[in-house]
Amino acid sequence: MAPKTPEQSKTTMTDLVLPSETNPLNNLFGGELLARMDRAASIAARRHSRRIVVTASVNHVAFNRAVPLGSVVTVEAKVSRAFKTSMEVFLDVWIEDRESGVRTKANEAIYTFVAVDETGRPVDIPEITPESELEKARYDAALRRKQLSLVLAGKMKAHDATELKALFE
Amino acid sequence: MAPKTPEQSKTTMTDLVLPSETNPLNNLFGGELLARMDRAASIAARRHSRRIVVTASVNHVAFNRAVPLGSVVTVEAKVSRAFKTSMEVFLDVWIEDRESGVRTKANEAIYTFVAVDETGRPVDIPEITPESELEKARYDAALRRKQLSLVLAGKMKAHDATELKALFE
Amino acid sequence: MAPKTPEQSKTTMTDLVLPSETNPLNNLFGGELLARMDRAASIAARRHSRRIVVTASVNHVAFNRAVPLGSVVTVEAKVSRAFKTSMEVFLDVWIEDRESGVRTKANEAIYTFVAVDETGRPVDIPEITPESELEKARYDAALRRKQLSLVLAGKMKAHDATELKALFE
Amino acid sequence: MAPKTPEQSKTTMTDLVLPSETNPLNNLFGGELLARMDRAASIAARRHSRRIVVTASVNHVAFNRAVPLGSVVTVEAKVSRAFKTSMEVFLDVWIEDRESGVRTKANEAIYTFVAVDETGRPVDIPEITPESELEKARYDAALRRKQLSLVLAGKMKAHDATELKALFE
Amino acid sequence: MAPKTPEQSKTTMTDLVLPSETNPLNNLFGGELLARMDRAASIAARRHSRRIVVTASVNHVAFNRAVPLGSVVTVEAKVSRAFKTSMEVFLDVWIEDRESGVRTKANEAIYTFVAVDETGRPVDIPEITPESELEKARYDAALRRKQLSLVLAGKMKAHDATELKALFE
Amino acid sequence: MAPKTPEQSKTTMTDLVLPSETNPLNNLFGGELLARMDRAASIAARRHSRRIVVTASVNHVAFNRAVPLGSVVTVEAKVSRAFKTSMEVFLDVWIEDRESGVRTKANEAIYTFVAVDETGRPVDIPEITPESELEKARYDAALRRKQLSLVLAGKMKAHDATELKALFE
Repeated sequence: MAPKTPEQSKTTMTDLVLPSETNPLNNLFGGELLARMDRAASIAARRHSRRIVVTASVNHVAFNRAVPLGSVVTVEAKVSRAFKTSMEVFLDVWIEDRESGVRTKANEAIYTFVAVDETGRPVDIPEITPESELEKARYDAALRRKQLSLVLAGKMKAHDATELKALFE
Repeated sequence: MAPKTPEQSKTTMTDLVLPSETNPLNNLFGGELLARMDRAASIAARRHSRRIVVTASVNHVAFNRAVPLGSVVTVEAKVSRAFKTSMEVFLDVWIEDRESGVRTKANEAIYTFVAVDETGRPVDIPEITPESELEKARYDAALRRKQLSLVLAGKMKAHDATELKALFE
Repeated sequence: MAPKTPEQSKTTMTDLVLPSETNPLNNLFGGELLARMDRAASIAARRHSRRIVVTASVNHVAFNRAVPLGSVVTVEAKVSRAFKTSMEVFLDVWIEDRESGVRTKANEAIYTFVAVDETGRPVDIPEITPESELEKARYDAALRRKQLSLVLAGKMKAHDATELKALFE
Repeated sequence: MAPKTPEQSKTTMTDLVLPSETNPLNNLFGGELLARMDRAASIAARRHSRRIVVTASVNHVAFNRAVPLGSVVTVEAKVSRAFKTSMEVFLDVWIEDRESGVRTKANEAIYTFVAVDETGRPVDIPEITPESELEKARYDAALRRKQLSLVLAGKMKAHDATELKALFE
Repeated sequence: MAPKTPEQSKTTMTDLVLPSETNPLNNLFGGELLARMDRAASIAARRHSRRIVVTASVNHVAFNRAVPLGSVVTVEAKVSRAFKTSMEVFLDVWIEDRESGVRTKANEAIYTFVAVDETGRPVDIPEITPESELEKARYDAALRRKQLSLVLAGKMKAHDATELKALFE
Repeated sequence: MAPKTPEQSKTTMTDLVLPSETNPLNNLFGGELLARMDRAASIAARRHSRRIVVTASVNHVAFNRAVPLGSVVTVEAKVSRAFKTSMEVFLDVWIEDRESGVRTKANEAIYTFVAVDETGRPVDIPEITPESELEKARYDAALRRKQLSLVLAGKMKAHDATELKALFE
């Protein structure tokens, strides 16, 4: 399988914040945004792998800014790194001011998906070739995150997580 | 107000067809697609006008291809022509084959929105300067559609609808 | 197949405007009303044809009055004309004042449905015999709308659309 | 306040059974039907009282027939008896065979609503004058049901529930 | 089949009142609470019977207190009595004050479910052995309610409903 | 403010997997489970703090087992550690076999919430005193996770993250 670029899986989901999706402070519920991001990320994973994909984990999501009712929200998802059968998808979320049109970063998130066949068994996927500086930085960090995830799950010993360990030296 | 291009209001909404949105043939319900297109079109209208916008009419929607459960659907909306306080928004809808990645046009639609202030009163909006050939063709046709709409509503006499009349000569 | 009257397909859908269906001005979202009308119209089309029906097009919808949160909304749908395998459905939408009980027309819409068999193939349907003056007027106009739709789709030449052409003479 | 007839509050809600409303046997969830009936009954109670109304109790609902996915369901609600500030609403639910058009009774239900002002305080409502035989029978039974409800809630002694007691003699 | 206790089917469903579930007074819609209770009760019935279960009837639901938007609502369901193939499920609903943490009873409800096999045919279920005083009182009352239900449905003569009749003597 | 135990914030949300929440493999969508867990975790955070709470981050969610349509899913949330104005909430998710009643762990997740006043400003919250062995282990790990989060956000230098660093020595 020929490698692909992150741009080839880029998925843009622009939508409104509807009244049914808000919390008592009239902002978008964290849970609703998590669900939207999961759908956008799954489309990016599917575009990269051309397979059925299932969410394997959510690695980190930071909610930096509240997203008020009626906002225009853009979720942008791109595959940041591919492993044998799994992919890390990086998401950026912006909101857009109605009067000025200025876009502000509201949060970012990292999801991991596995590509499977019709019976649910993992299948191999193409590699990723990052292009921009940001894509390269995310590609490199993805390996540290994978090691961290394996260490925390007890599937890798901390001193074998060479990429990660380097952070603390 | 400086004129804007259709590209400046371009809105992309990519999302999955969820099980709760299907009809007995397991395809996306017409009504669900109409609601999605209304949200995408309203964002495009808002990006053009930087105002609150409300749906004034749906001028034509053709459902040419069924959209099966699980499809990745992309709705793309751009303002095609602006009048004094109202805008025509043109929508193209594509579905994407999971295995080949090929995009197929599923349908297109035309909505009209009015820009209003906080009290619901219509407000003036910028003009549109079409750029591509397709944008120009849609810009020209928008006037005929507006005349047709006025004639059908009894607000313009047929023989005054010069652009429209030309079609039948 | 014996012809039927519009009354035989009449479908009444009375329901509340729920908080999850409103826009930032606290009125019913255009898209939600489009979805409700699609369901009501599909039931009318099904009652006329006794077949599975799918939305073929939305011909015109005018949103004349805003429908506030908490309103009682009545959507009434009747088949206005039947062609070989397709039907035009005319919808009237009213809202009702809670204190006085007075019904006001909020908007009207025209949808077209095709009757299909279990494999999705179009099947023949009964004709329509309009009874009231309003039903007769809508029946006549339906032919002009069909010609217009064919002309706009490039499937009929303008000078062959005799009914429509008469409008401009 | 002049008395009203049950017919004056009659509310018809015809809608489809959507995929998101079904249980594992592919029939309409009991809970979804309860919610639809609550909305239809509240509209009937509002039409009778011209007031804000809130659900006070559900007196009895029998689910006699399963309602399959894709069915056309008609919920019909009419006020069956009015007390000082509360009303009993009787609901009949039918499903309709697509091919034959035959309507079958699926279940019936009895809800009680209280009319309130903007602060939530109960307000007086008009009386009911039943017209048909069925309306008269339901009007009479409503008193027995009210007594039963008071007895079960410990707010009336059983031997004072004269209408109800007569049933067991 | 060995008898079970009500505690063995106990089901706790704690959730928020979301904006999409409220009425014009900003309280939880009666219909939404009915749907939640149906889901909780069906899980309790399923835990008792280990079978597919379908709602047979709603026997009584009293809405004593409004449940405001944003409340934490706890629905607790336990099988109160089992008959041959059907079960009565008793539900208690509490809301919880955010600042004091005090729980207040908002309403209670009684649903009846039937256990069925994959073809929808009723199947036998275990008996119930009540333990606490409240469980015993509800167990006893369940028989009177069943008789009442049979009498009202015309399936039992009033003078044969010995348990129920005793109430009026 | 007196410290509290994790048990005091324990929140149990048992519910069904509905057809509208499933992916093409007929399992619960990752995004839907994320939204459910967010609601359960926010109730636990609110029970601990007695304040309005907003989602600050999702630290890790592992989807170990698919959750099929129709499953009974129990989400259990408890505050695992409280910092000055923020709390870590640990969630365990189980599914339950209908026939055997056996509960299987489906996944676990860690969310962080901030307590705020009505204007959205962070407010101080009580400390946590873990009781069971599992609660103590999660309490200890919470500090490492907080350090990791600060390091990854560039708000703490890696060599100052003493708890975390110990992992790699």
